[in-house]
Amino acid sequence: MASSPITMMKMKLNNCSPPSTAAAAARFLPLLGPHQIRFRSSVAPLYNPSFPRTIITRPTFSSSSIITAAMANEALVKVIDGKKVAKDVRDEINAEITRMKDSIGVVPGLAVILVGDRKDSATYVRNKKKACETAGIKSYEVCLPENSTEEEVLKYISDFNDDPMVHGILVQLPLPSHMDEEKILHAVCIEKDVDGFHPLNIGQLAMRGREPLFIPCTPKGCIELLHRYNVEIKGKKAVVIGRSNIVGMPAALLLQREDATVSIVHSRTTNPEEITREADIIIAAVGKPNMVRGSWIKPGAVIIDVGINPVEDATNPRGYRLVGDVCYEEAIKVASAITPVPGGVGPMTIAMLLSNTLLSAKRINNFK
Amino acid sequence: MASSPITMMKMKLNNCSPPSTAAAAARFLPLLGPHQIRFRSSVAPLYNPSFPRTIITRPTFSSSSIITAAMANEALVKVIDGKKVAKDVRDEINAEITRMKDSIGVVPGLAVILVGDRKDSATYVRNKKKACETAGIKSYEVCLPENSTEEEVLKYISDFNDDPMVHGILVQLPLPSHMDEEKILHAVCIEKDVDGFHPLNIGQLAMRGREPLFIPCTPKGCIELLHRYNVEIKGKKAVVIGRSNIVGMPAALLLQREDATVSIVHSRTTNPEEITREADIIIAAVGKPNMVRGSWIKPGAVIIDVGINPVEDATNPRGYRLVGDVCYEEAIKVASAITPVPGGVGPMTIAMLLSNTLLSAKRINNFK
Repeated sequence: MASSPITMMKMKLNNCSPPSTAAAAARFLPLLGPHQIRFRSSVAPLYNPSFPRTIITRPTFSSSSIITAAMANEALVKVIDGKKVAKDVRDEINAEITRMKDSIGVVPGLAVILVGDRKDSATYVRNKKKACETAGIKSYEVCLPENSTEEEVLKYISDFNDDPMVHGILVQLPLPSHMDEEKILHAVCIEKDVDGFHPLNIGQLAMRGREPLFIPCTPKGCIELLHRYNVEIKGKKAVVIGRSNIVGMPAALLLQREDATVSIVHSRTTNPEEITREADIIIAAVGKPNMVRGSWIKPGAVIIDVGINPVEDATNPRGYRLVGDVCYEEAIKVASAITPVPGGVGPMTIAMLLSNTLLSAKRINNFK
Repeated sequence: MASSPITMMKMKLNNCSPPSTAAAAARFLPLLGPHQIRFRSSVAPLYNPSFPRTIITRPTFSSSSIITAAMANEALVKVIDGKKVAKDVRDEINAEITRMKDSIGVVPGLAVILVGDRKDSATYVRNKKKACETAGIKSYEVCLPENSTEEEVLKYISDFNDDPMVHGILVQLPLPSHMDEEKILHAVCIEKDVDGFHPLNIGQLAMRGREPLFIPCTPKGCIELLHRYNVEIKGKKAVVIGRSNIVGMPAALLLQREDATVSIVHSRTTNPEEITREADIIIAAVGKPNMVRGSWIKPGAVIIDVGINPVEDATNPRGYRLVGDVCYEEAIKVASAITPVPGGVGPMTIAMLLSNTLLSAKRINNFK
């Protein structure tokens, strides 16, 4: 069965469509697999970054030639392997912890406070605990029931603030609605605020000539990926999509500290596509599955995709799959480097939390 | 004497040239006055925003018709009158201070600490004192010699922190080089930091859902001008040129809080002209005389020029004149609104300092 480029585009787009459409498309995939795809160049657009450009000049293609050419094209794009980098970072942390333990007998400690019984929060905390253990960081965990009082949480924070064995304190968010999140987060002493969300830290991050004690983990992870893949930031045009306190805003501040020319795109931006298309570096942190399409991307741009969005997928045993804020299938044909989802920024967040905890333990103990 | 458009351009450009060139050009002005200028449309560019477009369609012009048309065109551009707005703001502050005094007997107090004998600093402090008196704010002034110790300054700050009559504390910068500026500024308690430079304030300014106690005076003045001239910010593209801690960076954060799509242009930006030309709103705060030329400006853009740069001017009795970061003569032919220098942002800074002091007195005394 032959299908027109339009059919193929539809299929491609379906991969980057909203959940329900994606699920519907997924049902068709076994019937209309890639081995059945053909397209005629006469209907193909002159320049369409979502197709390998080398193919467009040829009239018809067998399925295998398309696949081979697409693979060749995609091979030129660096897939930024967050899993690998996170492992390298964790190995380095582990070596540093051993060195510190051997020379001054100090083991970094991270305290995590979990209130209520949200399943996702419990999973995050469990993962953090596991990562701590692997890295050689001692973890202290407090699990409080949903109906705990603010005072109880504040008491634990106060105790951890005073505890010399604890170098980082993390309050898992979101807190139950009856608690004042700002008040609780502000109770964590700034020297142990390994999340880096304290406004004093954010202020230092924003100001030239100042140094924050900690950099928020996810944006720190994004920049670390750029560094490890030797992506030049200085003088480059960077667009951050999303302006959340935990990712978008601090990511923009970090890029600016590295001398990028930064624009911030958000829900009120009238022409996000046009602005994004000018960027050499894109950090997408908006939480909208596949929002950034191939047409939004300047050829050769580097893309860090922070989004981790579940979309329905009947072909997946779990009934869903995870996608980023960027339509990976389209982006990989235009970008010069991109983080996959999962396996991109995700693993970096926990690695940076460990990094911040080590940093804190070193600073508190004046260990170089 | 007739002169070609090129000569006219040269003359125009000379007004926006570096100091020495401007001074040299100024010497020629009496010989080559505007009444002698002609240009032929055949050599005039098809679209040149630095000329009134209505004129370009006509073949030749007498000097008077050029001047009339230019004046008509410039009349369409709103000159944002900072002097007038600052006066309005100060009148409003004055009325509020009277109301507060009458109802709870509290008079706002501003303490200014001046160290050393820099002439410019002394002038600033004198102006602030005068503005306070006019507005009905009590000012407390401490002048310390250049060779004072850090401890002496810190002692004064500590006393003012504890003094219930003082609602705002301002340390005049720059401090002598033997003092740790950061340490001294951090000693001012956050509730009296009317300058708004404390990183905790900056952090709150950067974070969504948080409110800074004070907004730094100059950027606050820029936004106030936009508000009072009913310039829509939400959804607009804004470019801030310069990223200083005291103007550029907080101005960008403020514009973002008002839902503009903000880009920050700085010394490492490779194509500042191109990026600036996309802006609906430009805030220039870079300290470079006439850096932003007519060609940098999108027709209809609104320009807030924060720069106050002295340039040599032999025709001026003082030997210099003040110019902004934007070439006013060129900009006024392209922009829809612009602040002049002087008389634009300048008068707003002190007005905002008074506004912050009043705000502080109200907050400390819980007066609505």
